[in-house]
Amino acid sequence: MNQFLAEYLGTLIMILLGNGVVANVILQGTKGNGSGWIVITTGWALAVFCGVVIAGPYSGAHLNPIVTLALAIAGKFDWNLFPCFFAAQLLGATSGAFLVWFLYKDHFDKTEDEATRAACFYTAPAIENKGRNLFNEIIGTFVLIFVIFHFTGAEIKSPDIIPVGLGSLGALPVAFLVWGIGLSLGGTTGYAINPVRDLGPRIAYFIINGFKLQYFRAAYSWIPILGPVIGSLMAAYFYVLISG
Amino acid sequence: MNQFLAEYLGTLIMILLGNGVVANVILQGTKGNGSGWIVITTGWALAVFCGVVIAGPYSGAHLNPIVTLALAIAGKFDWNLFPCFFAAQLLGATSGAFLVWFLYKDHFDKTEDEATRAACFYTAPAIENKGRNLFNEIIGTFVLIFVIFHFTGAEIKSPDIIPVGLGSLGALPVAFLVWGIGLSLGGTTGYAINPVRDLGPRIAYFIINGFKLQYFRAAYSWIPILGPVIGSLMAAYFYVLISG
Amino acid sequence: MNQFLAEYLGTLIMILLGNGVVANVILQGTKGNGSGWIVITTGWALAVFCGVVIAGPYSGAHLNPIVTLALAIAGKFDWNLFPCFFAAQLLGATSGAFLVWFLYKDHFDKTEDEATRAACFYTAPAIENKGRNLFNEIIGTFVLIFVIFHFTGAEIKSPDIIPVGLGSLGALPVAFLVWGIGLSLGGTTGYAINPVRDLGPRIAYFIINGFKLQYFRAAYSWIPILGPVIGSLMAAYFYVLISG
Amino acid sequence: MNQFLAEYLGTLIMILLGNGVVANVILQGTKGNGSGWIVITTGWALAVFCGVVIAGPYSGAHLNPIVTLALAIAGKFDWNLFPCFFAAQLLGATSGAFLVWFLYKDHFDKTEDEATRAACFYTAPAIENKGRNLFNEIIGTFVLIFVIFHFTGAEIKSPDIIPVGLGSLGALPVAFLVWGIGLSLGGTTGYAINPVRDLGPRIAYFIINGFKLQYFRAAYSWIPILGPVIGSLMAAYFYVLISG
Repeated sequence: MNQFLAEYLGTLIMILLGNGVVANVILQGTKGNGSGWIVITTGWALAVFCGVVIAGPYSGAHLNPIVTLALAIAGKFDWNLFPCFFAAQLLGATSGAFLVWFLYKDHFDKTEDEATRAACFYTAPAIENKGRNLFNEIIGTFVLIFVIFHFTGAEIKSPDIIPVGLGSLGALPVAFLVWGIGLSLGGTTGYAINPVRDLGPRIAYFIINGFKLQYFRAAYSWIPILGPVIGSLMAAYFYVLISG
Repeated sequence: MNQFLAEYLGTLIMILLGNGVVANVILQGTKGNGSGWIVITTGWALAVFCGVVIAGPYSGAHLNPIVTLALAIAGKFDWNLFPCFFAAQLLGATSGAFLVWFLYKDHFDKTEDEATRAACFYTAPAIENKGRNLFNEIIGTFVLIFVIFHFTGAEIKSPDIIPVGLGSLGALPVAFLVWGIGLSLGGTTGYAINPVRDLGPRIAYFIINGFKLQYFRAAYSWIPILGPVIGSLMAAYFYVLISG
Repeated sequence: MNQFLAEYLGTLIMILLGNGVVANVILQGTKGNGSGWIVITTGWALAVFCGVVIAGPYSGAHLNPIVTLALAIAGKFDWNLFPCFFAAQLLGATSGAFLVWFLYKDHFDKTEDEATRAACFYTAPAIENKGRNLFNEIIGTFVLIFVIFHFTGAEIKSPDIIPVGLGSLGALPVAFLVWGIGLSLGGTTGYAINPVRDLGPRIAYFIINGFKLQYFRAAYSWIPILGPVIGSLMAAYFYVLISG
Repeated sequence: MNQFLAEYLGTLIMILLGNGVVANVILQGTKGNGSGWIVITTGWALAVFCGVVIAGPYSGAHLNPIVTLALAIAGKFDWNLFPCFFAAQLLGATSGAFLVWFLYKDHFDKTEDEATRAACFYTAPAIENKGRNLFNEIIGTFVLIFVIFHFTGAEIKSPDIIPVGLGSLGALPVAFLVWGIGLSLGGTTGYAINPVRDLGPRIAYFIINGFKLQYFRAAYSWIPILGPVIGSLMAAYFYVLISG
C-alpha cells in the first residue's frame, strides 16, 4: 500500500467510525441514541486507533494535515508530498462522511432537526463566539500536537508514533490522547482539532443537500481549519524552542 | 487443547459474555438494567478479549467463520479444516447462548416483552430495511477484517493476531477494534459482524421456545450471515489487491 | 515484603477500592451517586489492577482463596501455606471494608435504606433463587479461573500472571477479565467470584452493627463462598483435563 | 527541556485537561453537560496520562509535590531541588486553571451557581466534616503513593515510573491508578490527592474574582494540602518499613 492510499484509507476509516458514533448517539431511533458524551469520545478515540493501525506502517498515520504540516516545518517531512497527503486526507474524510450518511440514512430521515443531522457531519460551537471558538480549537490542537511530539521521546519523526515491538498497541497512546482532549476540551466546539475532519464531511453534507450554501455554514467553517493550523504551528515552534 | 476445542470454548466464552452483557442491560430487574450502550459495547469488547485469550495460542482465535474464510481464501488456512472450524464456532455460540439463558432465566421470566428477550440472543435492526441492513453488516465486517489484517503488519497469518512477547495484552487490539465498531457502526443493526454470533444464539432461542419458527425470525436471519460473508470477502480481496 | 503481608495489603486495597466504588455510586449525597453499572464495574476492575500491582511481585497476587486453591490442586502451590494465605486474604478484605465504612461514614448515615448500606459491603442477588444464584457464582468464577489459566500461555504458575517486561501493565489482563465478568455476568448476583470479597466485608458489617445476626444475612452468605469454590475446582480440573 | 519546565508544562497540561473535564460536565450549555462521574474520572485519568507523557523523560513526571516529597524522604531526590519543583508544579497548576477559565468562559458566564463555577477550579467535600474529609484525602493519597512505589518493582526511583521499551504506554499505569482512586474514593472530597492540583486553581479563582477572600474558601483549603502531605509521608514510611 502506498502512503497516499494509506492516508486516504486511514482517514476514511477514522471518519467513518468517528462520525458514525456521533450519528449513533444523536440521531433518532438508533441503538445508541442518547448514550452521551462517554460514548462519543470513546468512539472517536477508537476511530483514531483504527485509522492509525491501518495507515501507520505505510505513511506514519498523519490522518490530519496539521500533523503533516508540523512535520514538514520541523524538516522531517518532504514539502513536495504535502499537497498529495492533504488531498488524500481530505478525500478520505469526505468519503467517510458519505459512508456514514448511507449507513445511517434511515435514521437521518427519521431525525427532523436539521442541526442534529448536520452535527453528524461537522462541528459547531456550543455557544457561538468566534474569537473564543477559534482559541479553543487552537488550544485543543496545541495539546494534540505537543503531546504527540513527546510520544517519540526526543525527536519529531512520524514512524516513531508507533513504538517498535508493541504491534498495534503502539496506536493506543494517540487514541488515549484524543480521548482525553475530547472529554476535557471538546465541550465547547466539539474538538475538530483537524481541518479535514471538519471540512471533508462539511463538503459531503453540502453535496448531499444539493449544493445549497446554507448547509455548508461557511460563517463558522473557517474556525476548525484556522484554529488547528495555528495550534499546530504554535506547538511545533514551541517544541523546537524548548528542545533546543 | 486442540484447535477445534479452542474455537468451541473461545466462541462459547465470547457469546456467554457478549450476550450476557445484553441480558444484563435490557432484561428486567438486573443490576445493570438500563445502563446503556457504553456497557453493552464495553462488555462485548471484553467478551472478545476473553475469547481470544483462551483460543489464541491453540487455533489463532478466529471465533468467527468469516475470519476463517478470509484466511482460507488468502491461502493461509487449510480449506479442509474449514467445516470443523465452522462447526466448532457455531456449536460454541449456541452453547454460550444457552448458558446466558440459564444464568438470566429469572430475569427472562420477569421480562414481558418478547422482542427484548429475543434481543438477548440475536440481532435485530433498529429500523428494518433489508437492503440497508445488509449494507451495514457488510461495512461493519469489512472494517473488522480489514483492520485485523493490519494488526499483523504485512501478511495474513492468524497467529500474528497476538504479537509475541505481550502476553495476553496482545488480545487487546482486536477487542478495541470490536469496541470501536460497536460504538460507531452498531447503532443500526446491532453489529453481528459474525455469522455464528447471530445464528448460534438464534438456534438456541428457537429450541428454547419449542421449535416454533416465529422465534427464529427467518426473514431477517440471513442478513447477519450474508452481510459478514460479503464484507469479509471484500476486505480480503481488497487487502490482497492493495498489498500487491 | 513477605507474601502474607502482600496478600493482606493487596486484598485490602482491592476491597477498599472495590467496595469504595459501590459506596460512591449507591450511597446518598456522594459525588458519584447514581452513576451506574459502568462506574461500578470499571472501579472494581481498577481495584483488582491496584491489588495485583501491589502483591504481584511478592505473592503472585492471588487476592482470592480460590486462586490459591486452584494452584494448590494443580500442584503449583504448597498446601501448607494455604491457611496463612486464606487468613491474610480474609483479614485484608475485612480491613478494607472497615476502611470504606470510615471513609463514607457520613454518607452511610445519610442513607436510610439498610439494604443499600449492606450492599456497600457484600453481595446480594437481584432475584433470590438459591439454586440459580449458586449456579451464577459457579459460572462467573469458572470464567475467572479458566481465563486466568490461559494468561500464562501453557502452565499454571502464579508469577506468570504478570508477564515479564511489561511492568505494571502486566496487571491489566486480569483487571480487564474482571471488568468483563462484571459487565456481563454480574447482573444477577453481583459477581462475588471470590469468597473473601464477600465474607470479609460481611464480617465487618456484622461487627459494625453490634454483632446482630440479621446484618450477616447468613441465609445467603454461603452462596458467594460455595459457588466460587465449586467454579474454581471445575475450572482447574477442566483445564488440566484439556491440557492433557 | 529542563526538569523544571517539564514539571511546569506537565502539571499545566494535567490541570488543563483535568479541570477541563469538570467544566465540560458541570457547566451550563457544554456538549458534555451532565455526562457524569464516568466522564470526570476518565478525563482526569487521561489528563494524568498526558502530563506524564510530556514530563516523564525530563523530570520523572512528579506533577505533584507530595511525590517529590516522598522521593526526597526516601533519599532518591535532591532536597535542594524541592523548592523549584514545587514552584514549577504550583505555577503550572495555576496556569492550567486560568486556561480552563478562558476556554470555558462563555459557559462560566451562563452558569449562575457560584459553587458550580468554583468546582471547576478546586475540590469541595460532598458533606463537610473536616476530620473525615482530611482522613479521606490521607487515604486517597496513601493509595496513590503506595501503589506508585510498586510500579517500580522494588525501589523508589522516579524514572522507573515509565518502564523502558513501552514508549508512552508506560504512562498508563499511573493513569489507571488515578482513574481507580477517582471512581472509588473520589465520592467524598473529590480526590485532590495533590496539594497543587487544589491550591493552584484556588489561587487562580481567587485572582479571577478580584482577590476576594470568600472565593478562596480558606476554611477548607488546608485539607487538600495537609491530607496529601500526611498520606504521602505515611505511604513512604510504610513502604520503607515493609521493604526492610
